[in-house]
Amino acid sequence: MRPSDPTGLHRVLDDRTVLPQAAQRLDTRRELWPDEVRIRVERLNLDAASFRQLERTHASPDAVRDAVLDIVRTRGKMQNPETGSGGMLVGTVEEVGPESPLGLRVGDRVATLVSLTLTPLVVEDDLARWDGRSEQVPADGYAILFGRSIAAVLPDDLPAELSLAVMDVCGAPALTARVVEGYDAPVVAVIGGAGKSGSLSLAAARRAGAKRTVGVVPTEAEAQLLRAAGIADDVALADARDPVALRDAVAAAAGGPADVTVVCVDVPGCEGGAVLTTAAGGTVIFFSMATSFSAAALGAEGLAADVTMLVGNGYVPGHAAYAVELLREHDGVRSLFERRL
Amino acid sequence: MRPSDPTGLHRVLDDRTVLPQAAQRLDTRRELWPDEVRIRVERLNLDAASFRQLERTHASPDAVRDAVLDIVRTRGKMQNPETGSGGMLVGTVEEVGPESPLGLRVGDRVATLVSLTLTPLVVEDDLARWDGRSEQVPADGYAILFGRSIAAVLPDDLPAELSLAVMDVCGAPALTARVVEGYDAPVVAVIGGAGKSGSLSLAAARRAGAKRTVGVVPTEAEAQLLRAAGIADDVALADARDPVALRDAVAAAAGGPADVTVVCVDVPGCEGGAVLTTAAGGTVIFFSMATSFSAAALGAEGLAADVTMLVGNGYVPGHAAYAVELLREHDGVRSLFERRL
Repeated sequence: MRPSDPTGLHRVLDDRTVLPQAAQRLDTRRELWPDEVRIRVERLNLDAASFRQLERTHASPDAVRDAVLDIVRTRGKMQNPETGSGGMLVGTVEEVGPESPLGLRVGDRVATLVSLTLTPLVVEDDLARWDGRSEQVPADGYAILFGRSIAAVLPDDLPAELSLAVMDVCGAPALTARVVEGYDAPVVAVIGGAGKSGSLSLAAARRAGAKRTVGVVPTEAEAQLLRAAGIADDVALADARDPVALRDAVAAAAGGPADVTVVCVDVPGCEGGAVLTTAAGGTVIFFSMATSFSAAALGAEGLAADVTMLVGNGYVPGHAAYAVELLREHDGVRSLFERRL
Repeated sequence: MRPSDPTGLHRVLDDRTVLPQAAQRLDTRRELWPDEVRIRVERLNLDAASFRQLERTHASPDAVRDAVLDIVRTRGKMQNPETGSGGMLVGTVEEVGPESPLGLRVGDRVATLVSLTLTPLVVEDDLARWDGRSEQVPADGYAILFGRSIAAVLPDDLPAELSLAVMDVCGAPALTARVVEGYDAPVVAVIGGAGKSGSLSLAAARRAGAKRTVGVVPTEAEAQLLRAAGIADDVALADARDPVALRDAVAAAAGGPADVTVVCVDVPGCEGGAVLTTAAGGTVIFFSMATSFSAAALGAEGLAADVTMLVGNGYVPGHAAYAVELLREHDGVRSLFERRL
């Protein structure tokens, strides 16, 4: 037997050495390597982009189900070959290897926070309880976590759906807090402040010592929601794709540029505005998957902007527990989340 | 007259408010706003991607020249509408507005370090001295710098071509130095260590206090060049697109993961390897324009990697002078540059 690697390399069946996420096929054997954990699966949450692609391609919900079953059987993981994306899963810890560093116990109800694209998965019920019409897939089977995987125990006091929505974006508030703590009472602007990652980031910024927080939203309707939530010191209305409008809106609300700007809207073209809104010596954190690397790099250079630009890493130790804590503390955050469930 | 804006907004002629880089057309009037500088142009260096596109599209060198003239006349700047890219220019300071913050004096011979895509430009000699066959375009005319532009005085003791090559990548060593200084004697790995930005980054890392520097290169020929240059403590051979090979090569050379990993190769697919090569708490700096934002973000999350990931900003105050200093100090860096001129 090959020795285990914390990244899961030992379960890659491809000829070339690639990480599990890039692999064509994973080894789904039940037996655990010493640092692994096996989860009894209860539900898969397919990535929205992946589910939409499957719906478009297949004529009926039954055909969608067959397609998912075929992917999982062929690849040993749920990774849509077209979109490249996966999703996450909920289940119960079934067995913990003696050398697992994840701190899980048998019986814990958990959500996996690493993607299904790298998680060995076996479906044992042919997805018989799924109608093929929604990303929420009731399932029976098992999945494997590696030494470097991430799973979070679901809180008892919150509906599972709410916890999952929080955990899906929990990297944003944790990284925001870390960056804000590196400044002395900074002004923090969160673009997309009424959204899921945005509202948590606003709450995190205030708790981490921001002097003033500005939530930026594109419409008056969202502005009213964010004001009612009470989690931002100021609410500014601007189209984040218009650099000058964004800069001026934040400056008018906060009395000057932001020290930390957090981009939480999945809209292309916000890079220049985020840079222009940020003071020299400040930091921009890009959480939007619509961010263009070259637009950010060239935009800052073109503006001679001495700002630090961070790729929003979805993993920060303790991120899930921290985000759930923020939700519990702030009714305003919770109400914004519940509107979107 | 509109008041001037340091970003050059006052010279944008479009109906929509956009930054000069995004504008269709710029105002090229000779008269300066108080914070501007006018440069007498001596040579344009077209961006390589832009020049290749023009060569492919037009039948003769004369037609290429006509195309460039047409772009500059129509847009008031040299921005290829197909590639979106521009280049840089060399010239002599002709007039300095009384409120210019750039610190330039009339007569200074300078290179502009902001892109031609946002620089108002007038060509006055019909590019008569250019044969249309190379990116190097002798030209007479003038260009305008804004309050937030960047221009560097060309050193007297170096050939202009060498200075330009150094200034073209000068953001990399400056940001590398800043990041390295934030750690206590870190291990620094530079992927693409024998290249222009890579060799400067290796020299910068050592000077900024790295305990050990590793230059990673893809071929034995480059390894020999880098060893001969004497600017890396270790030279490691690996394909940066193979995450496991990269991690193992750096670990073998340095005795463990890198604290700071600098990506300087313009090859797609290096994100996972760079993350895997970096220790928890470490930093990855992406200078490659081939970097995929989502591959970096999802890759780090999939590996549960607590690393800081920076978008390599091409602007750090003092970056040009710092890079020229490194070149003067290190014959090894200079020899690697001269091979590529």
